[in-house]
Amino acid sequence: MSATIHRLNPGEPAPSIDGLMQLVAPELNAVNQIILDRMQSPVAVIPALAGHLISGGGKRLRPMLTLACARLLDYSGERHHKLSASVEFIHTATLLHDDVVDGSDLRRGKKAANLIWGNQATVLVGDFLFSRAFELMVEDGSLRVLKILSNASAVIAQGEVDQLMVARQIETSEEKYLQVITAKTAVLFAAACQIAGVVAERGEACEAALESYGRNLGIAFQLVDDAIDYMSDAETMGKGQGDDFREGKLTLPVILAYRRGDEEARRFWRDAMEGRRTSDDDLAEAIERLKSSGSVADTLARARHYGELAIDAIADMPPGSAKTALMETVRFAIARAF
Amino acid sequence: MSATIHRLNPGEPAPSIDGLMQLVAPELNAVNQIILDRMQSPVAVIPALAGHLISGGGKRLRPMLTLACARLLDYSGERHHKLSASVEFIHTATLLHDDVVDGSDLRRGKKAANLIWGNQATVLVGDFLFSRAFELMVEDGSLRVLKILSNASAVIAQGEVDQLMVARQIETSEEKYLQVITAKTAVLFAAACQIAGVVAERGEACEAALESYGRNLGIAFQLVDDAIDYMSDAETMGKGQGDDFREGKLTLPVILAYRRGDEEARRFWRDAMEGRRTSDDDLAEAIERLKSSGSVADTLARARHYGELAIDAIADMPPGSAKTALMETVRFAIARAF
Repeated sequence: MSATIHRLNPGEPAPSIDGLMQLVAPELNAVNQIILDRMQSPVAVIPALAGHLISGGGKRLRPMLTLACARLLDYSGERHHKLSASVEFIHTATLLHDDVVDGSDLRRGKKAANLIWGNQATVLVGDFLFSRAFELMVEDGSLRVLKILSNASAVIAQGEVDQLMVARQIETSEEKYLQVITAKTAVLFAAACQIAGVVAERGEACEAALESYGRNLGIAFQLVDDAIDYMSDAETMGKGQGDDFREGKLTLPVILAYRRGDEEARRFWRDAMEGRRTSDDDLAEAIERLKSSGSVADTLARARHYGELAIDAIADMPPGSAKTALMETVRFAIARAF
Repeated sequence: MSATIHRLNPGEPAPSIDGLMQLVAPELNAVNQIILDRMQSPVAVIPALAGHLISGGGKRLRPMLTLACARLLDYSGERHHKLSASVEFIHTATLLHDDVVDGSDLRRGKKAANLIWGNQATVLVGDFLFSRAFELMVEDGSLRVLKILSNASAVIAQGEVDQLMVARQIETSEEKYLQVITAKTAVLFAAACQIAGVVAERGEACEAALESYGRNLGIAFQLVDDAIDYMSDAETMGKGQGDDFREGKLTLPVILAYRRGDEEARRFWRDAMEGRRTSDDDLAEAIERLKSSGSVADTLARARHYGELAIDAIADMPPGSAKTALMETVRFAIARAF
């Protein structure tokens, strides 16, 4: 393969996750059925609220990764169906609690759950889904999977708190920021991939390779998301452009622009992260500053770097449709920004 | 023993949990050490926020129950230390999320965590403790314990949502209310007791007896709490008197008073549960109405009933200091209201 992931030469089709979706489609139906079954409850608001997020617009990216990794290892059982549903429940619980924490208006292009059902029910339904995730793992019975996912959950929660604390701290270093997004986002991608290695019983080196693939893919995804917030619009992204900016959410483009900027630029970014720059004009100025300092472009360059690591992590796996789909997923993660 | 739990005859000492505390004191120190170790995190706000609740004023009732039940079964190992820490983490996570959900001002006589650190960090630290609870269970490695506690967690979350939905629905039946408090409170008491039976490997009948003891004790505790909210004051209880009333939180005293009342009484209670009666005068009127309709007294009578069930659930266990302490705990739960 070429040295750069991002290949959009004339005549070459744009990277997509169609290959991944085709690879796992039949099994994903089985996973979806488990998800629908297990979010039921005699308390009617639970499936209604959970379904708002689970049924609506979610790509099921993490379950698809579990399924594709299991296929990569020629695993022929069905244990990973329940487990990937479990991963999706953990993810959804995190999103619900995020909506409460962030006070976001839109999630996956729909009104955020907390705005419809209130913060209270949203917190509690998150707790419910989180508990259901563990029930699914317990039914599977693998202590190794339980360990991976309970650790991932603890790391995610720590990462969320950490992010909350750095949210408006403009002096946060790039490395600190990478720690935060690794904990908050990449660890669950990693776990989703690793558990395929557990059910396929392929040993620690194989698990580690899948873990690395997932973790680096997750970092790349997040960095591209960070860049996109300053690039695209609400229609294409399912969340308002500039949300991060208006919420004073510190992301890599801002960290880079601040570090590279002069006194006046730094004052702008400090004001912005402290909530004194929230107008459309401010956002336009932010985008201009990010462009002139190369901060969005370099955020994407960092993303490409992690994408390369992800691809190389599974480079020695046997070729086939699963490997192709997993590599193409990395390219898609990067190419979304273009 | 006598037919009524509540024995405060002249000359007879008031029931207390001193016996329980003495029984488990050395082991409780070991549990406390585990709790302190495992709430640590490189993210400083996590131990600070968790410690506010965990170190401050908590009775460790659930861990004490696990320890006492293990003693009742002559279990001599230490597995239940980690597991009772796990139960305390689940309980603390629930309290943190409750504080966000209820918007309460005080918790255990201290300012509620969400008022100091904000709703956002409070939700996330709750998630962290919940994850840590599962990590502790996974380290122990018993799938049976994992099943009991993951199920308990799911039931608690359902109960919380259910309670949120019935909170201001004055027509809620007594039976429905019992379902809610069983899920919300009693199931974790039950699990705390049952897991002692699991580690002692004493079989299903023994587990079921301990589960029944804990569940009925938990219901009794909650019903007495409900009554106390209309009886005592902020100094003695660690939460403001009439909090339930002012929040329009439907509890058994109100359910009974509504059902027993005439049109005018029902209008009063409906207004109260819908948030139109929140003054001190309204509270005084509520207390008077509860008294004249016998609703508080009968809530306590119901509590005594569940207390009797708890005591009989372990009646055939071998006599000794553990059994005495567990029975005395039931009497204490009831006697708090007098």
